[in-house]
Amino acid sequence: MSSHTDHSQKTVTAAILVIGDEILSGRTQDKNMAWLAVQLNEIGVQLREARVVPDIEAEIVDAVNKLRAKYNYVFTTGGIGPTHDDITADSIAAAFGVAIDYHPEAMNILTRHYETSGIEFNAARKRMARIPDGATLIYNPVSKAPGFRIENVFVMAGVPMIMQAMFAEIAPILQGGAKMLSRTIGAGLPEGRVAQKLGELQGVYPNVSMGSYPYFKQGEVGTNLVLRSTDPEALNAAFDALFDWLKTQGVSASETS
Amino acid sequence: MSSHTDHSQKTVTAAILVIGDEILSGRTQDKNMAWLAVQLNEIGVQLREARVVPDIEAEIVDAVNKLRAKYNYVFTTGGIGPTHDDITADSIAAAFGVAIDYHPEAMNILTRHYETSGIEFNAARKRMARIPDGATLIYNPVSKAPGFRIENVFVMAGVPMIMQAMFAEIAPILQGGAKMLSRTIGAGLPEGRVAQKLGELQGVYPNVSMGSYPYFKQGEVGTNLVLRSTDPEALNAAFDALFDWLKTQGVSASETS
Repeated sequence: MSSHTDHSQKTVTAAILVIGDEILSGRTQDKNMAWLAVQLNEIGVQLREARVVPDIEAEIVDAVNKLRAKYNYVFTTGGIGPTHDDITADSIAAAFGVAIDYHPEAMNILTRHYETSGIEFNAARKRMARIPDGATLIYNPVSKAPGFRIENVFVMAGVPMIMQAMFAEIAPILQGGAKMLSRTIGAGLPEGRVAQKLGELQGVYPNVSMGSYPYFKQGEVGTNLVLRSTDPEALNAAFDALFDWLKTQGVSASETS
Repeated sequence: MSSHTDHSQKTVTAAILVIGDEILSGRTQDKNMAWLAVQLNEIGVQLREARVVPDIEAEIVDAVNKLRAKYNYVFTTGGIGPTHDDITADSIAAAFGVAIDYHPEAMNILTRHYETSGIEFNAARKRMARIPDGATLIYNPVSKAPGFRIENVFVMAGVPMIMQAMFAEIAPILQGGAKMLSRTIGAGLPEGRVAQKLGELQGVYPNVSMGSYPYFKQGEVGTNLVLRSTDPEALNAAFDALFDWLKTQGVSASETS
């Protein structure tokens, strides 16, 4: 793949919808957002928005419908377990205006799973086989209860280990576009000293997004300068221009990851 | 304060808007959301939604306007530094349809700060004194550059240490309502075995929100059952009913935090 084909590809965007009171109460620290952001970028999908909503159907419906209209892909996490507060599947069905019922393949998977493990396949566990009409299953190699895809919305578990396994199932079918490339300089100067130069360079390289993130390490003030672009040539040119300027300032500067 | 006045108070809601490409790229793991959720609840403010948007004015404006119309308070983090990608102040001004200019008090604070520290107060740093018309400052004891409040929107830094110091400044002026109380049982059984009972109890105690979160620890499967309510009597009654039932099931169950 040549560098030229890279940045001539179209931009593919995504949003993440995190569903769950436990995130909004602060009880659980969401870890799926950052993980998915990195994985999506690897396959040329750019995360453009994330939302966290409570276990309330109207809120889930509203968020899903807004996000699926705006982005190429929507990934939801959470709310697909066996308990009464797991309302994601019903909410997605409501968002799409379709019915929801026990999905034959999901029932088969779970019947086999609980038979094998000698655990009762009770009514609560059968809830996990309820899938909106028209959706296809996302297999769950960890704990079996599947996620599902309906149009451009991918519904996954909230437990990171399970979500990651589900994502591995769907990654091959996602259609990526231009991949966002990134280079970072760790510079031993405060933001305020590089800000003007960075703004100038941003004008020179409009296709390179330039971010500046101060850090404080062992009493030292520094700035991570993150350059991002789908165009590797522009990225490298901007990187070199910034790096060369930093050297003229007599401050430490090195490429970091 | 008696337990009765607690749950007769009104519900006060909030949303958090995290602003920054670095969160959506996965480069930085957001830590402000969970921290603020806990702090807000301490003062009787319930976090109901969180959003993460990129450094794009139209996205910030749209999110701020949606959230400030829907919730009692909105807290933003990120994008108030000296570099060109710090566009939060301008975006908030645009959201409120007000002008933005150098704020005299913010200029004084920063002038003094840079004089004292012998650092040039250059044009980039002066950007941090630009505050929307009608806003009041939120002092920043860590690095001086202030945040601000305009109506029900509180604009804070993204660096957790600075955000936390700013929140300490504004916490006393927030008007809290009913505080969400919470009790958790760690139970040595899978979700699917407690789901039916939990659903039944949810029907009996409609004012107690019941959440169920599976865990896998050293090969053992268990479930954290989280009961939340603004009504301490209902909370305790629901807790006792669930705890007593778990004991009849011959599984381990203990109150955890």
